[in-house]
Amino acid sequence: MVAPKTINIAVIGAGGVGSCFLEQLAWLAKNQPIHISLCYLATIDGALYHPDYSELNIETALSTLEKAPSPLPSIPETIDYLAGTPHKVILVDNTSATSLAEAYPQFLAKGINIITPNKKAFSGSYQLWQEIFGAAKLSGALIYHESSVGAGMPIISTVKDLVQTGDEVTKIEGVFSGTMSYLFNTFAPPSGQGGGKWSEIVLKAKELGFTEPDPRDDLNGLDVARKLTILGRLSGLPIESPSSFPVQSLIPRELESTANSQEFLTKLPEFDSRMEEQKALAEKEGKVVRYVGSVDMATKAVKVGMEWFDPDHPIATLKGSDNIISFYTKRYGDMPLTICGAGAGGPVTAMGVTGDLLKILYQLG
Amino acid sequence: MVAPKTINIAVIGAGGVGSCFLEQLAWLAKNQPIHISLCYLATIDGALYHPDYSELNIETALSTLEKAPSPLPSIPETIDYLAGTPHKVILVDNTSATSLAEAYPQFLAKGINIITPNKKAFSGSYQLWQEIFGAAKLSGALIYHESSVGAGMPIISTVKDLVQTGDEVTKIEGVFSGTMSYLFNTFAPPSGQGGGKWSEIVLKAKELGFTEPDPRDDLNGLDVARKLTILGRLSGLPIESPSSFPVQSLIPRELESTANSQEFLTKLPEFDSRMEEQKALAEKEGKVVRYVGSVDMATKAVKVGMEWFDPDHPIATLKGSDNIISFYTKRYGDMPLTICGAGAGGPVTAMGVTGDLLKILYQLG
Repeated sequence: MVAPKTINIAVIGAGGVGSCFLEQLAWLAKNQPIHISLCYLATIDGALYHPDYSELNIETALSTLEKAPSPLPSIPETIDYLAGTPHKVILVDNTSATSLAEAYPQFLAKGINIITPNKKAFSGSYQLWQEIFGAAKLSGALIYHESSVGAGMPIISTVKDLVQTGDEVTKIEGVFSGTMSYLFNTFAPPSGQGGGKWSEIVLKAKELGFTEPDPRDDLNGLDVARKLTILGRLSGLPIESPSSFPVQSLIPRELESTANSQEFLTKLPEFDSRMEEQKALAEKEGKVVRYVGSVDMATKAVKVGMEWFDPDHPIATLKGSDNIISFYTKRYGDMPLTICGAGAGGPVTAMGVTGDLLKILYQLG
Repeated sequence: MVAPKTINIAVIGAGGVGSCFLEQLAWLAKNQPIHISLCYLATIDGALYHPDYSELNIETALSTLEKAPSPLPSIPETIDYLAGTPHKVILVDNTSATSLAEAYPQFLAKGINIITPNKKAFSGSYQLWQEIFGAAKLSGALIYHESSVGAGMPIISTVKDLVQTGDEVTKIEGVFSGTMSYLFNTFAPPSGQGGGKWSEIVLKAKELGFTEPDPRDDLNGLDVARKLTILGRLSGLPIESPSSFPVQSLIPRELESTANSQEFLTKLPEFDSRMEEQKALAEKEGKVVRYVGSVDMATKAVKVGMEWFDPDHPIATLKGSDNIISFYTKRYGDMPLTICGAGAGGPVTAMGVTGDLLKILYQLG
């Protein structure tokens, strides 16, 4: 009997997504034939690894690290360490760090495969995008990032499948932020009934944990712009950066320089009438207002902001904090391929990462 | 420079899906680095291949075959021929033949990888299912069938990802037939307005090409039952066969023995009042009637038939002939992961096949 092939795994980050991923990794190690050997775990506190790459216990590694962390190696040291393994190796970046994302080309050039939910690398400058995929092509290393858009939903894999089988994406449109989804579904329900004051809904969303710690990080639209940048580039548009197209911020201009989120939230009620007006304008035309992003391939127009929809449109009838993403393509014609569901949360985001891991294992194993 | 790796492809079937697939294959051969060598093409008219496996021209193979077909080899002869190639080989079965489907275990046992939109193999007896996946496991050959449910939409890959990453499917529910979708969306629109006579809508659907040549093949519910069988099995239920659970046929009992579709369609108007009654009963409760399939993992209940939905439910608001499939899982909680779009048609069905081909190429290449 042949011993199962060993693939080394290095994991950086053990926050909300990272800790769920470690649980899923422990399960996966027992439930498929390839020998997954965790050789490196790093958090903000430090790292856990052995110079001889000997296997860490996936289930106890995090608590072992927390008790006695080694100093965190620099990025070049991490690359050297991983490039020296006798086995094929996959780096799983479960952080949202820009510094690590910017080093992907160096990891890939050394043959280190990468999986990440981190949007930063793919929504930074177009030059970084080219360097990442250029390095991967040259070395043959793989890089997967399903969870960078729509968490565990098959969004990235779908747009790649469409393009790689020769279909032409004509338009992508959707609600890409769970926060924006909750805010607008609550503020302007399709029935026209209910709703409430915008600032109170923002406050409630924060209390429910549906926003970033600072809700301004959702309301500025940048998160949505980053996701559109990724999908647009995968569809073939060389988008320069998430700030190279119009993004409508829902932070009132007068509050852009508020010192902290507390001050922002205290002053936000003064501007409720502006959102009320947007809602009323849409209602007058029999529509509801939603915060959407879209990429139009024919006109090369990418935009993020408020738009109006018929009350029975799938974007208008979205529930809770769900995301919805529609792909209009040459093959699908007028009726898009649409995917909706939870686009955030530890377990489903980690699932996208674990699914990518399986895909790479099948190719390396 | 290393010569690109060669993978041999054998294609059986060149009907609506098969001819679209050949077009996509020609495109794919030029647009990815692995050398795809078509070595065998067969239709109902005969076959085209060379004893030395030399490459056929993808773009002209079909017309060459039609002009001068060789006799169609038997299935055992085809297996022997393909098993003898010096390269790795993929059989693409674009037929809906049961005989070929039943031979998959023999192909797989010889290391021949398989891709197919053909539902028959996966929705036949549970014994055949076990033989197929048992043979694949033993030989290491791969078998992919994305287009067997929902055409090019990522349905099979999603349920596999959910299960293989350790999530638990609790329920799958949806509209799995483009024909049933069109019939019910037209007959009982969510607005309550419009509609029309059931038999006239069936006739219109046939004229539009939305039904099988004999509409009874859609109305008996077997196509939906086959898809449910596949998804239930992938989720972990050992479903014996598509006839081992309740399937509601929309063929009136009195018309079950009609000699042909013409006679059936002529007599169908006599039974319009029955469907009208179903619609009225739902409307009385503020609901709309739809033809759905569902798998409930907790109770192991699989069923196919008419059910009632709120008019703003995504199943009720479905448009045209779209399919919709919702996955309820432990990780996704109360809000399902939902995919909707065209679930039939040559180009999108072929796209699911081509997408599978890419996945296998990445693993073999």
